[in-house]
Amino acid sequence: MIDLYFAPTPNGWKISVMLEECGLDYNINWVNIGAGEQFAPEFLAISPNNRIPAIVDHDPADGGEPVSVFETGAILLYLADKAEAFLPHDLRGQIAATEWLMWQMGGLGPMMGQHGHFKLYAPERIEYATERYRNEVLRLFGVMDRRLADNSYLAGEDYSIADMSCFPWVQTYKRQEIDLDDFAHVKRWYEVLKQREGLRRGMAVGRERINRNPQDDAQVRKTLFGLKE
Amino acid sequence: MIDLYFAPTPNGWKISVMLEECGLDYNINWVNIGAGEQFAPEFLAISPNNRIPAIVDHDPADGGEPVSVFETGAILLYLADKAEAFLPHDLRGQIAATEWLMWQMGGLGPMMGQHGHFKLYAPERIEYATERYRNEVLRLFGVMDRRLADNSYLAGEDYSIADMSCFPWVQTYKRQEIDLDDFAHVKRWYEVLKQREGLRRGMAVGRERINRNPQDDAQVRKTLFGLKE
Repeated sequence: MIDLYFAPTPNGWKISVMLEECGLDYNINWVNIGAGEQFAPEFLAISPNNRIPAIVDHDPADGGEPVSVFETGAILLYLADKAEAFLPHDLRGQIAATEWLMWQMGGLGPMMGQHGHFKLYAPERIEYATERYRNEVLRLFGVMDRRLADNSYLAGEDYSIADMSCFPWVQTYKRQEIDLDDFAHVKRWYEVLKQREGLRRGMAVGRERINRNPQDDAQVRKTLFGLKE
Repeated sequence: MIDLYFAPTPNGWKISVMLEECGLDYNINWVNIGAGEQFAPEFLAISPNNRIPAIVDHDPADGGEPVSVFETGAILLYLADKAEAFLPHDLRGQIAATEWLMWQMGGLGPMMGQHGHFKLYAPERIEYATERYRNEVLRLFGVMDRRLADNSYLAGEDYSIADMSCFPWVQTYKRQEIDLDDFAHVKRWYEVLKQREGLRRGMAVGRERINRNPQDDAQVRKTLFGLKE
């Protein structure tokens, strides 16, 4: 059994999608990030960066004590290894999956996060920062589009953890006002992924708990962004 | 032989350090990022995200055609696998090294990059953005400090690719005006790493080519940040 420490965010959904796709048994431990539960000492022991998601695997491959994993990229690699799924076995396939997983971790995720912050949450409109991150997000969508012009999935012909890491962020395109029609290959990929039953179940986890208007909630903003009330 | 596509930046040094630490033979292909050489079609074929560093290994483990790898996290994992070095062999050590590598890829690197941009390169002083990223960088240094309070290195008792991914970014602390005395365990770790011969050789690569005042060079700023002259 795996304990999933979770909140309904793009990073959280990467892992609920992977667990559903693998058919692994898991319990959800809800972490109310708006209320600051990610700063509790017992959570810090599992996730030293105070971020969701994290997992605890009570049945690790080495037969030892339960093991915890934080950072979505590390969790995805751990689960792919455990389930022997969604990571190619050959050298070149592994390289490609790892490249695009890292590209999401270091590029698409952080930059969409920054764009979302300045577009949706920052207390003042800052043109330079909003444009900086919008330009970078559009550039990254272009990079992804070129990759998917020649490949069914990010790692090549097989669906992998690289796709699962990107999907929940791409899914924010409407709120971030990105026109998917400008990225035909990303759009095709997105529509194909959306048909997957496991991905749909993973993406549905915690929808009912989403605070649709966090910008209206001064306490949440203070907790998440350190903003003055 | 490995071709290293390189410029003297924190991301570039991660890989020159790893190659030196492993004692692997490599050629340097200098990429003048200020002049936009990262946008050349032949480089795009190796590095579809138009970023340095990237490598081409002419002697891959599968005995096939030369293979290219982009994204520093993917390159580090590839080289650790190739050299059988600097990534623990046991499950828990591997988890720890992967967690902290991902933490650097998704957190320390991007956030120090953003802080550096707003502090050193942006054409206008934007208090909100500068403070946002400074606070996040200080938070991340705190996370690292707590980790290193109980562990010699980020992955535990052994030096690993996780340390190599963080060192070149931590090394920018002076320009980013971060006081290492506030982070005693990071400082101890930093001083220990600085004594390593391989790391020193890797960190020395390309020093003589650094443009010390890129903010004075309008063309460089336009190329790197899309800024109007």
